[in-house]
Amino acid sequence: MVIIVESGADEETVENLIDKVASLGFTPHPIYGVEKTVIAVVGEKTQEKIDILETMPGVQQIIPILKPYKLVGREVRSEPSVIDITDAVSIGGDRFIVMAGPCAVESYEQFSTISQYVKNAGAQVLRGGIFKPRTSPHDFQGLREEGIPLVEAVKEEIGLPFITEVVDVRDIELLHDVADIYQVGARNMQNFALLTELGKVDRPVMLKRGMSATIEDLLQAAEYVVVEGNDDVILCERGIRTFETCTRNTLDISAVVALKRFSHLPVVVDPSHACGRDWMVPALAKAAVAAGADGLLIETHDRPQEAQVDGAQSLTPSTFDRMMQDLSAFVEAAGRTL
Amino acid sequence: MVIIVESGADEETVENLIDKVASLGFTPHPIYGVEKTVIAVVGEKTQEKIDILETMPGVQQIIPILKPYKLVGREVRSEPSVIDITDAVSIGGDRFIVMAGPCAVESYEQFSTISQYVKNAGAQVLRGGIFKPRTSPHDFQGLREEGIPLVEAVKEEIGLPFITEVVDVRDIELLHDVADIYQVGARNMQNFALLTELGKVDRPVMLKRGMSATIEDLLQAAEYVVVEGNDDVILCERGIRTFETCTRNTLDISAVVALKRFSHLPVVVDPSHACGRDWMVPALAKAAVAAGADGLLIETHDRPQEAQVDGAQSLTPSTFDRMMQDLSAFVEAAGRTL
Amino acid sequence: MVIIVESGADEETVENLIDKVASLGFTPHPIYGVEKTVIAVVGEKTQEKIDILETMPGVQQIIPILKPYKLVGREVRSEPSVIDITDAVSIGGDRFIVMAGPCAVESYEQFSTISQYVKNAGAQVLRGGIFKPRTSPHDFQGLREEGIPLVEAVKEEIGLPFITEVVDVRDIELLHDVADIYQVGARNMQNFALLTELGKVDRPVMLKRGMSATIEDLLQAAEYVVVEGNDDVILCERGIRTFETCTRNTLDISAVVALKRFSHLPVVVDPSHACGRDWMVPALAKAAVAAGADGLLIETHDRPQEAQVDGAQSLTPSTFDRMMQDLSAFVEAAGRTL
Amino acid sequence: MVIIVESGADEETVENLIDKVASLGFTPHPIYGVEKTVIAVVGEKTQEKIDILETMPGVQQIIPILKPYKLVGREVRSEPSVIDITDAVSIGGDRFIVMAGPCAVESYEQFSTISQYVKNAGAQVLRGGIFKPRTSPHDFQGLREEGIPLVEAVKEEIGLPFITEVVDVRDIELLHDVADIYQVGARNMQNFALLTELGKVDRPVMLKRGMSATIEDLLQAAEYVVVEGNDDVILCERGIRTFETCTRNTLDISAVVALKRFSHLPVVVDPSHACGRDWMVPALAKAAVAAGADGLLIETHDRPQEAQVDGAQSLTPSTFDRMMQDLSAFVEAAGRTL
Repeated sequence: MVIIVESGADEETVENLIDKVASLGFTPHPIYGVEKTVIAVVGEKTQEKIDILETMPGVQQIIPILKPYKLVGREVRSEPSVIDITDAVSIGGDRFIVMAGPCAVESYEQFSTISQYVKNAGAQVLRGGIFKPRTSPHDFQGLREEGIPLVEAVKEEIGLPFITEVVDVRDIELLHDVADIYQVGARNMQNFALLTELGKVDRPVMLKRGMSATIEDLLQAAEYVVVEGNDDVILCERGIRTFETCTRNTLDISAVVALKRFSHLPVVVDPSHACGRDWMVPALAKAAVAAGADGLLIETHDRPQEAQVDGAQSLTPSTFDRMMQDLSAFVEAAGRTL
Repeated sequence: MVIIVESGADEETVENLIDKVASLGFTPHPIYGVEKTVIAVVGEKTQEKIDILETMPGVQQIIPILKPYKLVGREVRSEPSVIDITDAVSIGGDRFIVMAGPCAVESYEQFSTISQYVKNAGAQVLRGGIFKPRTSPHDFQGLREEGIPLVEAVKEEIGLPFITEVVDVRDIELLHDVADIYQVGARNMQNFALLTELGKVDRPVMLKRGMSATIEDLLQAAEYVVVEGNDDVILCERGIRTFETCTRNTLDISAVVALKRFSHLPVVVDPSHACGRDWMVPALAKAAVAAGADGLLIETHDRPQEAQVDGAQSLTPSTFDRMMQDLSAFVEAAGRTL
Repeated sequence: MVIIVESGADEETVENLIDKVASLGFTPHPIYGVEKTVIAVVGEKTQEKIDILETMPGVQQIIPILKPYKLVGREVRSEPSVIDITDAVSIGGDRFIVMAGPCAVESYEQFSTISQYVKNAGAQVLRGGIFKPRTSPHDFQGLREEGIPLVEAVKEEIGLPFITEVVDVRDIELLHDVADIYQVGARNMQNFALLTELGKVDRPVMLKRGMSATIEDLLQAAEYVVVEGNDDVILCERGIRTFETCTRNTLDISAVVALKRFSHLPVVVDPSHACGRDWMVPALAKAAVAAGADGLLIETHDRPQEAQVDGAQSLTPSTFDRMMQDLSAFVEAAGRTL
Repeated sequence: MVIIVESGADEETVENLIDKVASLGFTPHPIYGVEKTVIAVVGEKTQEKIDILETMPGVQQIIPILKPYKLVGREVRSEPSVIDITDAVSIGGDRFIVMAGPCAVESYEQFSTISQYVKNAGAQVLRGGIFKPRTSPHDFQGLREEGIPLVEAVKEEIGLPFITEVVDVRDIELLHDVADIYQVGARNMQNFALLTELGKVDRPVMLKRGMSATIEDLLQAAEYVVVEGNDDVILCERGIRTFETCTRNTLDISAVVALKRFSHLPVVVDPSHACGRDWMVPALAKAAVAAGADGLLIETHDRPQEAQVDGAQSLTPSTFDRMMQDLSAFVEAAGRTL
């Protein structure tokens, strides 16, 4: 780290600071400029030691040099991780992975119908909420326990793996057999109790970026899972909160590029939740491919029977199908297969 | 709600829309303008019904008119709620409440010393983290279970109530006897499992606004607690994420004014976490009083023996003492007592 | 527009409001719900009339229905505009346009060398700053008047059109002969004096989105130019300010999709300024193509002789060349030519 | 500055970097850590030199240590500047200054009536727009030239100084006699041509913070004026753009505290534009006083004859009067006079 000393600090203050740095087990390297003094500090830092130094007189600012995550960084593993979902499906490799399905699982018929058409169109993973975190307590919270047998029946019928959100540490076990990937939603990205428990399971975890989480925050949250022993974390960009109101959130396409550079973990994009506008989803999906994402999470429509519907953020069967067809040229341009 | 119809929609589309509105149990009032048609919709809405309408052809946008929270709003209760913490201390009334203490409880000696000086300076509630949610899994997570007897000893000695953060549904019971107020941190503001469980306890809950939560999101999160039966929710503004990097977060002082107007719940401000700069805390504390807050949450220093320390976001004993003295004139100007 | 009436408003207040609406020349349509009353208002609105209504007792909120821009919207012109830069180069049509060059024109040799290599790599428009708006008054402000003859010589030599930024209304005439496209920088997007004057010239104008401008703000700024008679406006997405610090700004890729849908004007993307990281530029350039942009603005390096350089946001000759080659497959996938 | 070297950089790369630093006239101090190398650089930096270093191989990041402004900083002048507006009115000293008036000057009668009541209530400076920058070209742009004689007549009658916005370099001279303070609007904060010209006039300049300008950006913009010779710059916080939609902008109250600490220039707050809600203005005005602001800019209503009006962001005569009375206790608590 580098300590920037306050402008008016006298010699004694600087010396005390240097002594403190040394007493904490670091090697201090003071550099005296014309207007400013800085102290470069070599050694293994902890947050506690930084906290102590921050309270010392004369400290203007402490600038960390090392990244605050380790296990998920490229320094530890320079090659991209390929995570196996099932024997047949893995993510992070040559194949571009599309996960699709309804927002919430509502009935056997609904989930079976949608699952069939997304499979036919080329999706490799099914998605659907069983436990739904809703902003308002007055809204529908999902089928909950009752949804599990429905999904198991559909999975067997369709033959694709399934991703679903876990919102409560107490539900991890309950969902264990039905979920091939546990999804952590944006609102729970820093629910450290949940992350820690998911670090102990033998299933891949897809971690959605919080609405106001920095790229570094997301990687630190992933570190919470990996540090407990579960290496199989998939990162998901799903839009951040900005002042723009034209879209529900702002898809941070740069995050895909940055995450792929800083981390070895696979990165997927959820354009449906990022924009909240069905007409925008296909274009953002193409952009995600072009930016280097490993996959997509796409919300498809609950009422495929109402064929001409066109609203909200879910794609109708025909729109999803067309998107998948359009996507293939971009996937190929990116040197991958769909 | 008001449905804005797409510009190019033909007569049949508009009629289908009107029929759908009626079939959902609403009364539709179409208004035909020169360029645009809107349909005003009267009746009790649910998210499901809105979702269905959003998928109808011809719908450009749906504008909700009613606020998405009920129980915590001024419509339900026009007078401000006064919440009793103990027999002696309540919040939301004439008395302005200062809650103070260290970031984390570290030892009996540390917590006892700090508690004594904040009490002497005029604080009415003690604060201190037992379970600490940390951004990095490599950082100190608090004393955890071991911290509880320490705090109980200090509480008895000092005679003030105690507020502490709960980060895991499984810890609610554990903390029940030691916590006079359960604190929900910003990162857990939308941990709905936690909110629901806290709605069932017989203790006040202080809910911190998430870093990217709107005022409406915060009120909806409070509704989650109240809907389960626990009316005693205290709202806390602690800074939001913006592009400004001079402060850790940006204290949204307007939120205090808006929350007091829209809701009957008490509102406190945490200037320490909002700015992350000790030299800024006293000025923001005064601003909070002036804006109409009911109380403050102030972080005080862990090492009061290092008397001249001046760093980070914690106040030293002498700075805290001076702030409390300066505050009194502003509290009086606001028509309250300290 | 729709007027939402305050919850407690009595009958007289609502009637006064309805009378006021009528007296301003509108047709009021009151709708009485159980909890709320709204008044739908039909007629041509102006800001003045809205201001008057906003001050009436009983008004909670006024929701505009019509978009605040007209001439640049798809309602006026449903086909995309194709803007001719020169006889040979136009933008908004089938051909994808890359504009490239250094941040600032520094010397004949520098600009000539860079221009030659970007042309060879496939760029169709040269870019380079003559007047540089700098955040600090202590920084280099560009060659200014002296730069013009240099650029004219290079243009003649290379045979490509040139885009450059105008920062002062008094420089419009000065730059008229050398600039084939006037660029308005992000910091001047709402410099209405400049926009109005540029509405009177016979040259295309490229308008960069302000760092905190919404998509609607950008379209209204474009309207300022078009309303004066200059239809040839090109919109440019170049990143918005968010809390994320990993990139200089956050490229809002959704803005490309939204601008193409709401407006008939061509849309280009400036990935260099959006991210400020050279290693990220090629991936964002591809994403821009995939999202449907009509062109790119790319900063290339000032010192091509230092062949291995790799820093900041400018691309070296070899990186630029490689990016152009990689781009072609994506341009083709998007159904266009490079 | 401190150069952070890329993790994989070899010895030769680091040596080249050190040589380059030295060749630019700096003194390099390399520090070799276990995982990272940093080079502390002593010497006077310019943006050009930083740009060159940023392009060198092996550079991961350059961290500036010195603040990017000089003349407006506390290092140059440790005491707060007191700026004389007229012989009778100055800002930055013991007296708290309220500037009030309508958004736009519309007629002699309107401006005279409002000016009289704001003076009676205690305002010391009149405000009112003559040239109005409007987001839409279809909106009212102010009385323009015709407004000047009206204002001059009212000024003579009332006997208070006047502040008004200048939006075009070509209007500076025109407004010279009527304006006692030139106001630069938020949208023009980085209109460097305008700032440079205002640096040459003999009138105070009030500079409003741009909607997405950092505190550092604002101070650099002020530096543009001061560097040209005009020391009399007043800074104005008027809200920043965030995701929150409950208020028009988010008043950054911390900015007041930070600006007063980093700069010697006076700081005022515009709560009217910050929140856009009349019911919120008085509370924010009190918070501004408590946070240490030197003054306020308040929008008052255009139609004082409609006594019960209550809307938008302007205060009615009675609300303004009550606010001024309430304010006095807070001004006194802050150790100042109204």
